[in-house]
Amino acid sequence: MKSPRTKLRRLPKRGAHDRPTIDAILDEALVCHLGFVHDGRPAVIPTLHARVGDEVFLHGSAASRMLRTLATGVEACLTVTLVDGLVLARSAFHHSVNYRSVVLYGTARPVTEAAEKERALEAFTEKLVPGRWAEVRWPSRKELKATAALALPIVEGSAKVRTGPPLDDEEDYELDAWAGVVPIRTEMLAPVPDPRLRAGIETPGHVTALVS
Amino acid sequence: MKSPRTKLRRLPKRGAHDRPTIDAILDEALVCHLGFVHDGRPAVIPTLHARVGDEVFLHGSAASRMLRTLATGVEACLTVTLVDGLVLARSAFHHSVNYRSVVLYGTARPVTEAAEKERALEAFTEKLVPGRWAEVRWPSRKELKATAALALPIVEGSAKVRTGPPLDDEEDYELDAWAGVVPIRTEMLAPVPDPRLRAGIETPGHVTALVS
Repeated sequence: MKSPRTKLRRLPKRGAHDRPTIDAILDEALVCHLGFVHDGRPAVIPTLHARVGDEVFLHGSAASRMLRTLATGVEACLTVTLVDGLVLARSAFHHSVNYRSVVLYGTARPVTEAAEKERALEAFTEKLVPGRWAEVRWPSRKELKATAALALPIVEGSAKVRTGPPLDDEEDYELDAWAGVVPIRTEMLAPVPDPRLRAGIETPGHVTALVS
Repeated sequence: MKSPRTKLRRLPKRGAHDRPTIDAILDEALVCHLGFVHDGRPAVIPTLHARVGDEVFLHGSAASRMLRTLATGVEACLTVTLVDGLVLARSAFHHSVNYRSVVLYGTARPVTEAAEKERALEAFTEKLVPGRWAEVRWPSRKELKATAALALPIVEGSAKVRTGPPLDDEEDYELDAWAGVVPIRTEMLAPVPDPRLRAGIETPGHVTALVS
């Protein structure tokens, strides 16, 4: 996973290159930020992603500029970030956040075969809500055609993680400022049924299981 | 704010170019994803940001590759994304997320003057925790020197927002699948005092006010 580019020069103790760490962060993050160069200029677009084995799937409309650009074989940078807490130090300078992030570099492979595209859509649906795929109408041939999918291999990348309390300058521990961490988490609230939901359809277990 | 690049070609009804919408999304998001081109290749790095008026401040170590690259006047793309809910449709194809995002394009101005740099650090501290700046030790001359700050003007950009229930194909409303939205929110939990916090320092109001 290491390359000259992913060798972490700043704060290397926060870095990791092992796949279990990278995979866990990719799998927990709902959206990624995908960077690419278009007409020589940088573009960063938020999009859903779903890891399957050694690849990260991306998808969207077949008309998407991002997917059409990436399908030509230009390089991509895929970044995900989970923010875990506010780190409040005694000095303004040492304020920080606890976070887990992954940066992947690579060239995405277009997914063109219908069966593989359908497996990618299954992965997206199951990542959003485990158990959902079995409960919904599967994609039609026309929908598969209207969907573009790409697979970015996990070959060059790194994770970066900050955890724990603030680290203040030694003399600042004497100050009377409060210091500590305010943990942050992503909370799922009670499901809101579609106003057009047919009468008599109860909220299923795979949906109630999401609620924090 | 509109330019050929920020004119939203796909799903234009989700787009907005008005400053109140853009500012509110920038201000609510804790981290942004900053894209730039380095040696011809895309890079996307998560970082904190703080809007002050018509500019978005960025900061970090004076040794940061990202900040040093951007300070040379290369173009940046700054993207923030807030995920508000899972949108569960009756068909796999129409699954989505509710979100609010902003994409800004531009060239960042290095903040070199010490007083302005200090104001930028105040903005970061106050954005993380309103009321915090008055309670902590302010940056020393040495810390200001070790900090690089940049200001990206809000001139070219757009917001994109999806809200509301799933939109299914008309014939799918007859299916017996549950459909609706699972709202997502960012929750701040009870503060965890620094293990080295001096005895007798109570959690102050500006910290307890954060907790959801």
